[in-house]
Amino acid sequence: MPPARYPRPVDLSVFFAGTGASAPSARRGLSATLLRAGGDRLLVDCGEGTQRQLVRSVGLPELDVILITHLHADHWFGLPGLLKTFDLRDRQTPLELFGPPGLKGLLERIAPTFGKVGYPLDVEELDIDESLRFDGYRVQTFATRHRGPSLGYVFVEDDRPGRFDAERATELGAQPGPEFGQLQRGERVRGIDPSDVMGPPRAGRRIVFTGDTRPSDSTVVAATGADLLVHEGTFADAERERAGETAHSTGVQAAEVARDADVRLLAVNHIAARVHAGEMEREVRAVFERSVVVRDFDEIELPLRDRGDPVHRRWSERTPADRAATTKESAAEQEDSGAVGSHT
Amino acid sequence: MPPARYPRPVDLSVFFAGTGASAPSARRGLSATLLRAGGDRLLVDCGEGTQRQLVRSVGLPELDVILITHLHADHWFGLPGLLKTFDLRDRQTPLELFGPPGLKGLLERIAPTFGKVGYPLDVEELDIDESLRFDGYRVQTFATRHRGPSLGYVFVEDDRPGRFDAERATELGAQPGPEFGQLQRGERVRGIDPSDVMGPPRAGRRIVFTGDTRPSDSTVVAATGADLLVHEGTFADAERERAGETAHSTGVQAAEVARDADVRLLAVNHIAARVHAGEMEREVRAVFERSVVVRDFDEIELPLRDRGDPVHRRWSERTPADRAATTKESAAEQEDSGAVGSHT
Repeated sequence: MPPARYPRPVDLSVFFAGTGASAPSARRGLSATLLRAGGDRLLVDCGEGTQRQLVRSVGLPELDVILITHLHADHWFGLPGLLKTFDLRDRQTPLELFGPPGLKGLLERIAPTFGKVGYPLDVEELDIDESLRFDGYRVQTFATRHRGPSLGYVFVEDDRPGRFDAERATELGAQPGPEFGQLQRGERVRGIDPSDVMGPPRAGRRIVFTGDTRPSDSTVVAATGADLLVHEGTFADAERERAGETAHSTGVQAAEVARDADVRLLAVNHIAARVHAGEMEREVRAVFERSVVVRDFDEIELPLRDRGDPVHRRWSERTPADRAATTKESAAEQEDSGAVGSHT
Repeated sequence: MPPARYPRPVDLSVFFAGTGASAPSARRGLSATLLRAGGDRLLVDCGEGTQRQLVRSVGLPELDVILITHLHADHWFGLPGLLKTFDLRDRQTPLELFGPPGLKGLLERIAPTFGKVGYPLDVEELDIDESLRFDGYRVQTFATRHRGPSLGYVFVEDDRPGRFDAERATELGAQPGPEFGQLQRGERVRGIDPSDVMGPPRAGRRIVFTGDTRPSDSTVVAATGADLLVHEGTFADAERERAGETAHSTGVQAAEVARDADVRLLAVNHIAARVHAGEMEREVRAVFERSVVVRDFDEIELPLRDRGDPVHRRWSERTPADRAATTKESAAEQEDSGAVGSHT
């Protein structure tokens, strides 16, 4: 497959808006992960309170796509409020909502509770091996193993063309300028084959989101060589049996999947309230070193592969300017001011 | 009506878990107000994120009663998640849910989304002049004027018996001990009429919750002489026209109602995100001095009437021990620890 044209490196990051399981805790909101790819904003799952988690941190963006992994309450109860809020702010742009079978029936059931929205809302049910095409990337589903229909999602960036060897092209007789451009676009120039002056295509970045699942081979396959695997880790490993009974994973099991798939970074989310995250991180890293147990508002940036490793930042490590908005809003310190209105 | 027996003074307070309108802002969650009367916990409205607002502040109590003022999204979208969380923590005690006509149909519609709960859940629709009897108080509905069916609620504490004049009773020949008790219970002793030694019944405390409403005479009537009027004030007074169009009130209009009803304290809540609360408080107090424009996690304590005025406390003014749980959880400063599990 020829490498797709990719105009320029695209900023790619994952922001963890909610990392808790089942019920919110003081420190963890419910499942919601924001994927930022260039100007596109995709949300994976939307637990109750997601809109507020975003408003309190990076702001509530005009989402393009919402991907629901499964229909358990803690993964979508924030959806009606979010759809309603978009309508209140007079959204016009279309919103695409994807999820497993049952999603349409669910939306039909709850639609009367929030009324008709004024923007195009497209709801699609996906199977376990589907590919959604976007500009510069695709989103692919894979089977996870939870209770009831559930999907994992893979963000697959298009490959980028190989490096252009300008020196070699000049040696072979091409002129800098339009001729270089022709070669880079794969056209022959002065008898020079583009493959003589272009390196091999560079693989695009890949991010895997499991949603809730027990450890599964399908995840290993989907995640092999991925830049980032976002895998649930609901329980400490001492509760492996309970994880099995409820079709969840322990953090260590997530690490085993990450190790088998040899991903560049594992981010464990969907943490039960009683889990000690520091201890979980220790047991996870004992199995797979390149792991983080994420907290709410953590972010992982994914530079192009040849420009460095994924960078994990705690909210508390962000620059003061980055954090100012939220810090000054924190419940303990809040002072009323007119500036807030712009958020909603 | 004879004064009801009231065993001892009951702690009475109102905690503002969410004070925003329509959509959550960085500083304000959606409508939810917790009434604490002795050991009873009543919640008025339950916007999206209510369970988390409580978990982040005073903890999520085992609510006895939820009172919904009307069925707009921002007043009940937190209900399914809350009902689900109670089930997850294996609640056994009954929960009573009250609201205007339409509530039952709504619950039937959304019940399949969160499944059957394991505790008795009683859903009742109320008319605009109903009285619910509880131990030591009643909750009474009144008509508000919003779009669609809407209810206000009045907490009406039973009157307490008058003061017992022990000196006078002794003068009249009664013996301290059982005879004093008989007189206090309204029985004649040695020819002494209880009214000779008991002062007049002392009126119970009264708290009025409007939910969303334009200013209305029915609120003035319900609130006359109340200890606390919790009245919506969605808009600054410059937007009086818009308030009228949307069947809301401005803060100043809430103050006019409070003035006409001569309440002891007005708390304005349901504040739109773009309102400058400090400015609203100035314009509100120009009309009615005994007013506060509340923020999330503010609390108002209501001592017995003869023991002092209502006390308004900002979250930031609470004792360090009070606040510790939330301060250390603030998004900017959070550090994982095992202690959090106890919240959920």
